Amino acid sequence: MSLSVYERDDILAMEKRYRAAFVNSLSGFKSANLLGTSDTSRQTNLCMVSSAFHLGSDPALMGIIIRPDVVPRDSLDNIRETGVYTLNHVQEAMVSAAHQTSARYPRGVSEFEQVGFTPLWRERINAPYVQEAAIRLGLILREEHTMAINGTHLLVGEIIEAHIPDCCIGKDGFIDIEQAGTVALSGLDSYHTTKSVGRLSYAKPDTMPEWLD
Amino acid sequence: MSLSVYERDDILAMEKRYRAAFVNSLSGFKSANLLGTSDTSRQTNLCMVSSAFHLGSDPALMGIIIRPDVVPRDSLDNIRETGVYTLNHVQEAMVSAAHQTSARYPRGVSEFEQVGFTPLWRERINAPYVQEAAIRLGLILREEHTMAINGTHLLVGEIIEAHIPDCCIGKDGFIDIEQAGTVALSGLDSYHTTKSVGRLSYAKPDTMPEWLD
Repeated sequence: MSLSVYERDDILAMEKRYRAAFVNSLSGFKSANLLGTSDTSRQTNLCMVSSAFHLGSDPALMGIIIRPDVVPRDSLDNIRETGVYTLNHVQEAMVSAAHQTSARYPRGVSEFEQVGFTPLWRERINAPYVQEAAIRLGLILREEHTMAINGTHLLVGEIIEAHIPDCCIGKDGFIDIEQAGTVALSGLDSYHTTKSVGRLSYAKPDTMPEWLD
Repeated sequence: MSLSVYERDDILAMEKRYRAAFVNSLSGFKSANLLGTSDTSRQTNLCMVSSAFHLGSDPALMGIIIRPDVVPRDSLDNIRETGVYTLNHVQEAMVSAAHQTSARYPRGVSEFEQVGFTPLWRERINAPYVQEAAIRLGLILREEHTMAINGTHLLVGEIIEAHIPDCCIGKDGFIDIEQAGTVALSGLDSYHTTKSVGRLSYAKPDTMPEWLD
């Protein structure tokens, strides 16, 4: 298999859109979530995020990345205003509509209406869930960091509600997100379903791991 | 489909390992990379990371999360000592050995030898790549943040080398990591191959996105 090495200067010299597609592919597969927010008058906003990642279990923490140059920055403004947001797993049937939420709709236009998702409100949190999503999370903003190198924002949220289909939870707490229909993302615009290879036992120095079940 | 709602107190009350499996499943699919590091005397270390995520294209930035309570913290110590590290995509045939790198081997023991991967050295970077990986990245540490809420470390690295199979690069810069054999992770220990649903065109407010190709 022939292979090319791209050095720092090669990457910096790439045409802007080419570089964005290239570099966005490098981290591996990404999570696909819809970020639901609202201002205090319940004007809703919904956008695709591929950056949600695990930050800790006790308390249950998740990070998301928000670019500094997104205008209008409805989601970030809403989160700072209300202190809460939702993350909703994207399933295969939702992919086109979920992708469409990244179009630059004018401020005051709700992506829920534009792309055809249903906002679901719960008492404890002033941010809309996506009714169509099988797995939904409600979060409170706990911490914010700004990257000095490019101004990107890291929002750290604590999960205060998790909506999980009963059929997908294992005896040991594992949630079968493949069975729930959650998709994976790669690059900027590529969507993937998954096929389980299996689960491996807890790794110990003296033995190789075994496939569970 | 019956669904349960887990509130903050329900999650906090879960048994520790159950909670770790549960919460680790919530963010969606994760990237699967091997983190290669070395001390200044070329004692190597290799460990699985599921937290690599995109942070920016210009310059090309990636974040990884390192837990505060990992003892010994060889990888973090090595990165702070040398300022560099590698990330290497995990393919299906590598899954068992890659998973095994998370066993707690004593300090001074190289996971390369223990699990059977081959270190690949390049001139520009004092950290070992994984020869067996189809996609390999070399990074320089640019920035470090510590989460106040749980002491977790975010390392921000700039990609200074990317090794990419020629067959996997599209005309627009997109890298077909599915074709490269990269796997996805869910939870703590579940591995998945992928099947492409397709790529969608750049989203614009006035039209729905189209499938590319």
